[in-house]
Amino acid sequence: MFEKFFYVFIKYIVMYTLIDGKATAAAIRREIREEVDYMRHSHEKVPHLAAILVGHDGASETYVSGKEKACREVGFESTVIRYENTITEEELLEKVDQINRDASIDGLIVQLPLPEHIDEQKVIESIDPKKDVDGFHPVNVGRMVIGLPAYISATPAGILELIRRYQIKTEGKHCVVIGRSNIVGKPMSILLARKDYPGNCTVTVCHSRTRNLKEIVRQADIIVAALGKAKFLTGDMVQEGVVVIDVGITRLPSDKTKSGWKLWGDVDFETVAPKSSFITPVPGGVGPMTIVSLLRNTLLAAKQAIYK
Amino acid sequence: MFEKFFYVFIKYIVMYTLIDGKATAAAIRREIREEVDYMRHSHEKVPHLAAILVGHDGASETYVSGKEKACREVGFESTVIRYENTITEEELLEKVDQINRDASIDGLIVQLPLPEHIDEQKVIESIDPKKDVDGFHPVNVGRMVIGLPAYISATPAGILELIRRYQIKTEGKHCVVIGRSNIVGKPMSILLARKDYPGNCTVTVCHSRTRNLKEIVRQADIIVAALGKAKFLTGDMVQEGVVVIDVGITRLPSDKTKSGWKLWGDVDFETVAPKSSFITPVPGGVGPMTIVSLLRNTLLAAKQAIYK
Repeated sequence: MFEKFFYVFIKYIVMYTLIDGKATAAAIRREIREEVDYMRHSHEKVPHLAAILVGHDGASETYVSGKEKACREVGFESTVIRYENTITEEELLEKVDQINRDASIDGLIVQLPLPEHIDEQKVIESIDPKKDVDGFHPVNVGRMVIGLPAYISATPAGILELIRRYQIKTEGKHCVVIGRSNIVGKPMSILLARKDYPGNCTVTVCHSRTRNLKEIVRQADIIVAALGKAKFLTGDMVQEGVVVIDVGITRLPSDKTKSGWKLWGDVDFETVAPKSSFITPVPGGVGPMTIVSLLRNTLLAAKQAIYK
Repeated sequence: MFEKFFYVFIKYIVMYTLIDGKATAAAIRREIREEVDYMRHSHEKVPHLAAILVGHDGASETYVSGKEKACREVGFESTVIRYENTITEEELLEKVDQINRDASIDGLIVQLPLPEHIDEQKVIESIDPKKDVDGFHPVNVGRMVIGLPAYISATPAGILELIRRYQIKTEGKHCVVIGRSNIVGKPMSILLARKDYPGNCTVTVCHSRTRNLKEIVRQADIIVAALGKAKFLTGDMVQEGVVVIDVGITRLPSDKTKSGWKLWGDVDFETVAPKSSFITPVPGGVGPMTIVSLLRNTLLAAKQAIYK
């Protein structure tokens, strides 16, 4: 009883804003839906996303059906092409090539991971950069770095959009990115340092070899935690007023949920939130933004907004 | 007299190592020369670099003739294709396409800047990434970021090579890159954070919008100064034992040289060197390494070492 009162009290006196990824994602889906409805009424072709799924990996099945459902909700056409694990690299490359040449399809994603006998990088590079709505092709990565129009991959694009929608100031801020992965850490460090909004940050990239991590993180105005260690970032490591973007998702056993599992971010929310100005929860923060980023890239592809 | 004695004295008591880019570049040229001699004796095709030069810009003429001379010195074949400023974009793209398909040419560079009526980015992207020894094509930039084999552009490649040859430790070091240009700042920040040697640094990128630059730079174990402001970095801004890589080149009037000009780096050498463990001079530091990086990329192209 006292504990509950205490937390309600804390919630009133601390001034942090919870960055609601779920609500933001829903709002963006509605915006996309409206645009697609307009396209349909104008007898324009609606965006069409194709996904290739190889094998029966549980997580992959879930991701692909989530993407399919999201497409339906916003009025996109969607096609899922399924293969058994026995498909050869050559057959897969042939299919990609066929979709590259199919003008009715705007975006193509190949769900990873692929079976071991298939060279993932080769498959990614075989996708026409113009249809690479995952933004994994070197051409899109390179163009993003150079500052040219490019498909930005789902997680970084989702984070930028949250910063934009919550009008978080970034110019001149010191942003510390924890993690140097190809899909989050590296692109985030590039994007937040660029001459644009969101951007113009002083950016520090920390990782497993960083020595004085605590000391560096404590200087941050903005933290992007993307290292994949549950509750790694604790309240004593951050300064007052920090903006915290939690990209981590770790599933740990729990006796407090029906499923027996609970999702944890890289941030220890309880101790960090009270010191934050803005913070994303896990779940419901960055996660829900990834699929809408993919939808958005597909819409951009259909409108030929990135590549003329 | 006293002043001279004082500087000689200082030179003996301070323990910094001067990173001699000129000598290192000469050593690398000799190594390349030996490899090319061996290729020639084995009746293999020797590397062949083609350069396209449009117009009569003085600096461009100097750069291209320097590259030609360097090719001759190491035994490469080299071809310079010259056009007047009146060439159309179409004609230039056609020439690039022809060279792309010419198996006798391993590497192609198009000297920048191009006349205003030609879209530079379009020309860069028209070069076959396999022959893009300048490393400016988005495919090479993207592959570098992802960690795949790629042509790394001349200045960053030269800096990495200096770090390697002087066996400077980088793992876990805090590297501060000042400047976020596409040709130096951005690639250096990516390369020094990668899981490799040289690399595994905690990397901070600072630029014109950085607020507390002095405070950040003072934490650096390694500084890459690439902002283009003469003598910007002064001794009071660095900590003892710092490694300093000076990428700046600014030409200022001088009454102490015959030419009436003197080159300055971004680093105030007199005050920074005594606090450094390693430091590059200007001129004679990073500068001489750029042409050998280009030679090296051309050798890699001839050996199909990056793209199989």
